[in-house]
Amino acid sequence: MNSKKNKVYTSINALLDKLNIADGMTISFHHHLRNGDKVLNLVMTAIASRNIKDIHIAPSGIFPCHEPLVEMMKNQTVTAITTSTFNPGPVPQAISRGVLKNPVRLMTHGGRARAIEQGDLHIDIAFIAAPTSDCEGNLNGTNGPSACGYLSYAYADALCADVVVAVCDNLVDYPAYPIEIPENRIDYILLTDSIGDPAGIVSGTTKVTSDPTKLLIADQTAELIAELGMIKNGFSFQTGASSTSLAVAEKVKRIMQQNHVVGSFALGGIHAYLVQMLQDGLFKALMDTQSFDLESIASARMNKNHIGISASQYASPAAKSCLVDKLDVVILGATEIDENFNVNVITNSAGTIIGASGGHSDCAAGSSLAIVVSNLTKKQYSTVKKRVTTITTPGDTIDAFVTEYGIAVNPRRTDLLNKLKNTSLNLVSISKLREKALSLGAVDARPQTSNRTIGFVEYRDGTIIDTIKAITD
Amino acid sequence: MNSKKNKVYTSINALLDKLNIADGMTISFHHHLRNGDKVLNLVMTAIASRNIKDIHIAPSGIFPCHEPLVEMMKNQTVTAITTSTFNPGPVPQAISRGVLKNPVRLMTHGGRARAIEQGDLHIDIAFIAAPTSDCEGNLNGTNGPSACGYLSYAYADALCADVVVAVCDNLVDYPAYPIEIPENRIDYILLTDSIGDPAGIVSGTTKVTSDPTKLLIADQTAELIAELGMIKNGFSFQTGASSTSLAVAEKVKRIMQQNHVVGSFALGGIHAYLVQMLQDGLFKALMDTQSFDLESIASARMNKNHIGISASQYASPAAKSCLVDKLDVVILGATEIDENFNVNVITNSAGTIIGASGGHSDCAAGSSLAIVVSNLTKKQYSTVKKRVTTITTPGDTIDAFVTEYGIAVNPRRTDLLNKLKNTSLNLVSISKLREKALSLGAVDARPQTSNRTIGFVEYRDGTIIDTIKAITD
Repeated sequence: MNSKKNKVYTSINALLDKLNIADGMTISFHHHLRNGDKVLNLVMTAIASRNIKDIHIAPSGIFPCHEPLVEMMKNQTVTAITTSTFNPGPVPQAISRGVLKNPVRLMTHGGRARAIEQGDLHIDIAFIAAPTSDCEGNLNGTNGPSACGYLSYAYADALCADVVVAVCDNLVDYPAYPIEIPENRIDYILLTDSIGDPAGIVSGTTKVTSDPTKLLIADQTAELIAELGMIKNGFSFQTGASSTSLAVAEKVKRIMQQNHVVGSFALGGIHAYLVQMLQDGLFKALMDTQSFDLESIASARMNKNHIGISASQYASPAAKSCLVDKLDVVILGATEIDENFNVNVITNSAGTIIGASGGHSDCAAGSSLAIVVSNLTKKQYSTVKKRVTTITTPGDTIDAFVTEYGIAVNPRRTDLLNKLKNTSLNLVSISKLREKALSLGAVDARPQTSNRTIGFVEYRDGTIIDTIKAITD
Repeated sequence: MNSKKNKVYTSINALLDKLNIADGMTISFHHHLRNGDKVLNLVMTAIASRNIKDIHIAPSGIFPCHEPLVEMMKNQTVTAITTSTFNPGPVPQAISRGVLKNPVRLMTHGGRARAIEQGDLHIDIAFIAAPTSDCEGNLNGTNGPSACGYLSYAYADALCADVVVAVCDNLVDYPAYPIEIPENRIDYILLTDSIGDPAGIVSGTTKVTSDPTKLLIADQTAELIAELGMIKNGFSFQTGASSTSLAVAEKVKRIMQQNHVVGSFALGGIHAYLVQMLQDGLFKALMDTQSFDLESIASARMNKNHIGISASQYASPAAKSCLVDKLDVVILGATEIDENFNVNVITNSAGTIIGASGGHSDCAAGSSLAIVVSNLTKKQYSTVKKRVTTITTPGDTIDAFVTEYGIAVNPRRTDLLNKLKNTSLNLVSISKLREKALSLGAVDARPQTSNRTIGFVEYRDGTIIDTIKAITD
């Protein structure tokens, strides 16, 4: 005869009693609900109301919707944060101003999985937003009213955290399937009215640009890849969901169609353009770490070759192998790039944190061709600096930088330079690009910062590659 | 730019060189290829030819095809064995005669997963037979010429072993999918001509009995379950693939159809009868730990609600929950049962090892109703003993014993006895069943054994619940 423990709680307070939440604990979340996430605020508000202090939160990402954290940083409910994704908003702004007691620890997606699996980032309690679960915690992200796609970044948390809580607004009959995270990893289920706002779950940036400058950059990028002979059968590709990245995807798609090329896989954050390429037979598989739009969520539900992968399988440098190491071409963004090709996506030119590495340095390190695309100037600033404000991705992992004024290939890549010798591509040195920006009236100014360190940039292997200083207003 | 390590070896000897195989290592395998498995022999023969000694093998199961182990036990290549499945054959026979240097350690399926995940069973190298893999080790068991169904028992090995080798005869383009075990858990791939003999992969016992005695037992069993009101919407069920078990499944199916009952899930080893019940809508899902036949393998490939689960999710007592604890009814076999309802499935009445617990004690412990079915006599022996030769499953987890001469309900289950008071079922005490067997001329004899301990029976939580002595010829 069996003895069945009830895992399901409907009261966050009853659950917190059971969990013995205490000062100084490390609590994690995942960010697949993006700016529609209600789980972090739900849990942290309940914790704050208990006058618990010194919580270390370790979400895979923080979005503008997490603004309540600002007050919690001020009153020292939260005194430490470790994350791998920031969208610009009140939380990183407050951190930049020195509101968080301890320096924020910024990781890469692969680095976060590595740190969790190797014990560098020990999680006391993981709260996993679960769009569908049963009463024992067999859960998935692809079904239910708050469906957000695969929960890739949460897999390491579920595997390694001492206690794992699924937070769910769609409790279904046992057994729920598909099973992304199985019940044997789940301690409790917190049932709540809604875990996510559908309007915020979908990213706002998933349209191809109509800006002629950006389209020119995308054209040049696609041509660069093609001239290098990399758009061929079996090639693999990652691009983000920025409007320029999508334009690159669109142009790569046309080249593939013209030349009847079938690629191996597209990787990373998945959006409608990649889903369409899968359905058109241009890629054999999508290897998905997060969904950016409804088309991608639906595809994850329906297409067997649209595959959810863990952050570890995606990019952990400690994994026995990972997908970024099989990646041929990745298109990356940049806030700043310097003459050594170091890239900054963390701080803007005012020194305010506006992002985190995400998969940036993972993909740059793993891929055969890491291309950074950006307008040469942004507002009054040159994108190319003598030295970036904050190193996110080391320059020796970046292969080319494409702007509307030409393409700078990393001089280290003599192989690429040789292949491109007789092409019509406008190849320039990166220092010439900086000169061009300055000649256009853009400036290369470093932000005003204080001496106070408010953040550490951790490379994927855990080494600190830069520090971030508080801004002065 | 990426640096790619080649994981694929075509020579077992080159791989063994790389692995630094050494005396005293623990090496694991899984048994989903059953009596068609070629991987254990391939690896162990290569190890033996290097004159390596004192290997501890920890396969999830051992079959007659693994006969070469007998010689390896004799020459001390293999001096220790830990397993959770034995089919009768030369290896357990030799162990029973004292050929293995150290006592064999017999676990349950859930206990093996627990021991691996908690570090009680540390594996140096896991060799995982992989019916389909790509060059990085994304692998599955449901595709390829040696498809054997889900590889459930290997998941803990892949997660916890220091080094994991996929042994594959069907290397496909990257990325292989579906992904049962991902590349980030795989160190090497050994490519070989054939990992399995299809004729041996399929179990030989998957037909409903035509023996009238066994059919009577099956009838009584189904009636018992029905009288207890357990064949109702949402109920869950596990039965093995013995001919009597299949007859029970067949009769339960008819009752479900007559009463328009839709169950929740069927669990454990899956066969064509359960697949048919899934496809007829009689169960919502199949929760699969191994496939017994081709229909089950095909169903795992095609049906979204035919779900592969880990041994940990199946039955680990250390898991945050597991499926056996959700199980309503399980049908179990017995070599012997005693007046305290203790069951033996490990040794026969001659004292020779012919089995191991598998999921027997896991399911008995977890389920609401654990029914043992058996003929009352086997050859000259009474199935009911004063005391079983070897305790596999403690009697306090067994609820009823069904024979052709009546049904003995465990007196501990007064609730069941009350419910059955006014039925026409032939309820008898278990001691009366023993008397009946003796009156028919069967004997309750204990086997001739020596004082030498040749095996330990580990309960699912790791406690030793019995020892096995060497037989005397």
